Amino acid sequence: MKLYFAPGACSMGIHVILEEIGKPYELAPVALKEGAQHKPEFQAVNPKSKVPALELDGEGRALTEWPAIALYLAGSNPEANLMPRDPAAQARALEAIDYVTGTIHPNAFTRQFRPGNFSVREEDHPQVIEQAQQNAEKFFNLVEKNWAGDTWVLPEGYSVADAALFFVEYWQAKRVGKPLPPKLDRHLKAMLERPAVKRVLEQEGMPA
Amino acid sequence: MKLYFAPGACSMGIHVILEEIGKPYELAPVALKEGAQHKPEFQAVNPKSKVPALELDGEGRALTEWPAIALYLAGSNPEANLMPRDPAAQARALEAIDYVTGTIHPNAFTRQFRPGNFSVREEDHPQVIEQAQQNAEKFFNLVEKNWAGDTWVLPEGYSVADAALFFVEYWQAKRVGKPLPPKLDRHLKAMLERPAVKRVLEQEGMPA
Ligand SMILES: N[C@@H](CCC(=O)N[C@@H](CS)C(=O)NCC(=O)O)C(=O)O
Ligand SMILES: N[C@@H](CCC(=O)N[C@@H](CS)C(=O)NCC(=O)O)C(=O)O
Repeated sequence: MKLYFAPGACSMGIHVILEEIGKPYELAPVALKEGAQHKPEFQAVNPKSKVPALELDGEGRALTEWPAIALYLAGSNPEANLMPRDPAAQARALEAIDYVTGTIHPNAFTRQFRPGNFSVREEDHPQVIEQAQQNAEKFFNLVEKNWAGDTWVLPEGYSVADAALFFVEYWQAKRVGKPLPPKLDRHLKAMLERPAVKRVLEQEGMPA
Repeated sequence: MKLYFAPGACSMGIHVILEEIGKPYELAPVALKEGAQHKPEFQAVNPKSKVPALELDGEGRALTEWPAIALYLAGSNPEANLMPRDPAAQARALEAIDYVTGTIHPNAFTRQFRPGNFSVREEDHPQVIEQAQQNAEKFFNLVEKNWAGDTWVLPEGYSVADAALFFVEYWQAKRVGKPLPPKLDRHLKAMLERPAVKRVLEQEGMPA
């Protein structure tokens, strides 16, 4: 098994899941800033030119899309207890994950990190970034207000949904440098205490 | 069980899944064009102000996020055979769904249907729409090129992934009026032949 990742990118969340599972895997960095995702070598792995991509032993095509990789890893490693067994609780986990990957990541962060994808003119970038930061605040407040768990996202305990929320919380607190609402701040701190998360940050060369 | 939907919106795909299952459910229209999603009545159902939202019997909070609703419905109705049993095939189903809901829907269609969310100035809208249509072509060609199934998305047969691909194909062919690549065109035609899909279009008042 080989994870294609970029340091500090959303792939960080999948990296956390692999470290929680604790079985051997390989890491393959993709230099997004240099455009390596658009080179034929990587497009042969993932024609969508995105990380994360997980090469599975014995399967031709790498598995892509954060939620699909997360559920696959949780499902094929039941002893790691990263997904509740009950179908309704599983649905809540996927709901939380998809809010992160389908809404918070693109509409709050991709918008800030790549304003050129959200405006035709360079002079509009500050306004796009400002909108994105307002989105981030709105989305995080919504998660805070609807928090159903205790320390972790699900009342059932730690799950792959925590690894999803982690990467956007990390971006907000450590990359953008803005505060999180109290429950999310506590969640991020609890994540940063996990040995798996510490190993990931060290391996990716990201500040703890 | 009650589905909050808007005619012709992405909720159409969840509506198809409910019709395939064939058990009783209620339909609750949300007038998106009149802003009903932002009214307190609907925000009590889904504070994110989006359809689809599925009210479950005996659960306080409606289930949201297309992929979560789809997997929940498939998992809680195994006799409908809408999801393969094998974990690797399930991961491929979710991968296909998330490419539709996380990439094709927002970056090709929301961008066309709501250019104001992707540009600060009204005079830039034509350029945003043009970009979005190029994205649509690129994304559909990528699905076409990596098609692994026969008639349906998965080689294992019809699944909830077909209901996801259906709603974006329908938008491209019937709403935007642009051609689909050959395998996807065949897929859309096969979907339009399914009795469940015919019932959905009729119930939503959408052209067949
Ligand atoms: N839908 C994808 C999105 C992944 C994604 O946006 N990855 C970013 C890094 S955070 C990326 O690879 N960006 C490179 C690019 O867009 O060129 C998923 O859920 O995995
Ligand atoms: N992440 C959501 C997105 C759903 C979504 O974008 N729904 C659109 C209709 S196709 C909507 O409700 N739009 C209303 C609005 O944005 O005001 C999901 O996967 O269910």
